[in-house]
Amino acid sequence: VGEEIVATDGFTIIGERINATRKFIRKAVKERDVKFVQNEARKQTEAGATYIDCNAGANPATEADDLKWLVETVQGATDLPLCLDSANPDALRSALRLVQKTPIINSITTEPGRAEAIMPLVVERNTFVVALCMTESGIPIGADERVKAAEAMVKIANKAGVSVTRMLFDPAVTPVSTNPQEAMAIMQAVWRIMHDFPGANTTCGLSNISFGLPNRNVLNRNYLSMLMGAGLNSAIIDPTEPGMMATVIACNAIRARDEYCMHYIQAARDAKLD
Amino acid sequence: VGEEIVATDGFTIIGERINATRKFIRKAVKERDVKFVQNEARKQTEAGATYIDCNAGANPATEADDLKWLVETVQGATDLPLCLDSANPDALRSALRLVQKTPIINSITTEPGRAEAIMPLVVERNTFVVALCMTESGIPIGADERVKAAEAMVKIANKAGVSVTRMLFDPAVTPVSTNPQEAMAIMQAVWRIMHDFPGANTTCGLSNISFGLPNRNVLNRNYLSMLMGAGLNSAIIDPTEPGMMATVIACNAIRARDEYCMHYIQAARDAKLD
Repeated sequence: VGEEIVATDGFTIIGERINATRKFIRKAVKERDVKFVQNEARKQTEAGATYIDCNAGANPATEADDLKWLVETVQGATDLPLCLDSANPDALRSALRLVQKTPIINSITTEPGRAEAIMPLVVERNTFVVALCMTESGIPIGADERVKAAEAMVKIANKAGVSVTRMLFDPAVTPVSTNPQEAMAIMQAVWRIMHDFPGANTTCGLSNISFGLPNRNVLNRNYLSMLMGAGLNSAIIDPTEPGMMATVIACNAIRARDEYCMHYIQAARDAKLD
Repeated sequence: VGEEIVATDGFTIIGERINATRKFIRKAVKERDVKFVQNEARKQTEAGATYIDCNAGANPATEADDLKWLVETVQGATDLPLCLDSANPDALRSALRLVQKTPIINSITTEPGRAEAIMPLVVERNTFVVALCMTESGIPIGADERVKAAEAMVKIANKAGVSVTRMLFDPAVTPVSTNPQEAMAIMQAVWRIMHDFPGANTTCGLSNISFGLPNRNVLNRNYLSMLMGAGLNSAIIDPTEPGMMATVIACNAIRARDEYCMHYIQAARDAKLD
């Protein structure tokens, strides 16, 4: 407890691969395939993840058990802290008893009741928490709606005695293919949240940007650079995706979060930027 | 005359390769190597340049003749308009007589006398002009000094009757290796100039960011994404550099300057994003 959310190089990477909305992970969770899941954990650790996301699926009958199994399995393969990805307070509560390091809880929203049910866990276990900027009617439109959702969640956190330094605001990235005007509004929301709430963190499910388009990786990487320019200091990404870590390392150097560019230069020597 | 500076896809690429500060170009200019120079012009045209920069070197005894030769040679290989890269009003004046399309003049600064000597050419030939944000003491530090230099050049332009829509403000990119705090200040200067002077354009000599560091291309591309997120709508780059055009095309899609992402999707089909 009490660890810093931000990695030493100034950017927190939440490895997204272990998510049961993905077919192979759903199968591995169902079949209790330790080897498959641990391999996913190791790959992301080696690639440079800071946290490993654990999403066990949303089946109310099994989620609590599935998430407990996932937490123990992943912790058997990596020393990294976990991001517990669930909207289910019961599943979160039982998983929290098993975590060895301060986790991130993913996520609260302004949805009535959701934050109220989850914030006590954040307080009790002194965790970090992703605050997803959804409005009451669903996905926000424009920067203002996102910042307002963030403000609402800051109020909830303040009431619970949780500092913004323990929060990661997620502006809810939408596909540029269907919402072409949103990408820049989301970037502005990141900028404003980082400015309005000093010490706050911002993160996002980056790859939503490229949904429905070819060469998704190119859009993902370029959007990450833009968002890092606006102050984004975390992302829920696949660190094994080609070029993704090079983007993070280059942007950290550009943002002066890599003293003497030493991490960048080392990555170049290790052929991690090729 | 009167053409739009901004290409249909919302970003103006000034191809930087034909610059006599580069050894091979200096040699080609000296030896009047038509084939070499025309090949450089064609390569950049095919890669997607919007303008071709022509820098004939700064030898006062020969620059005017060298630049005239360069203009005629490049125009023999491409239909693209040119960017006449010189601080020498005489060389610019004689080159301007030869250009077939409205060029960009690169550049004016706040250096006493320089803008005064060059602006009459901008007015007379109704050209575009790069306004390099240098201060009286040289390279600016921080965003404020850059914006102030831009303001000073807007005043000069207003006095001459030149609209900001004909200007490309260059915030003077400095290497992150020697000036680690400047990269983000430069990004903010781009944002502020685009905000403070509606209709203005911004450009930059991008690759300065990576001077002295390995894998320069990775830094160049990522910084370009960040600057495009801040509103940059032109860059002086090498469009043949790996991944550079993919960055421009992806960022234009993200910035909603590529309707239905059609240009992006076509580039994917043409394997230009790989």
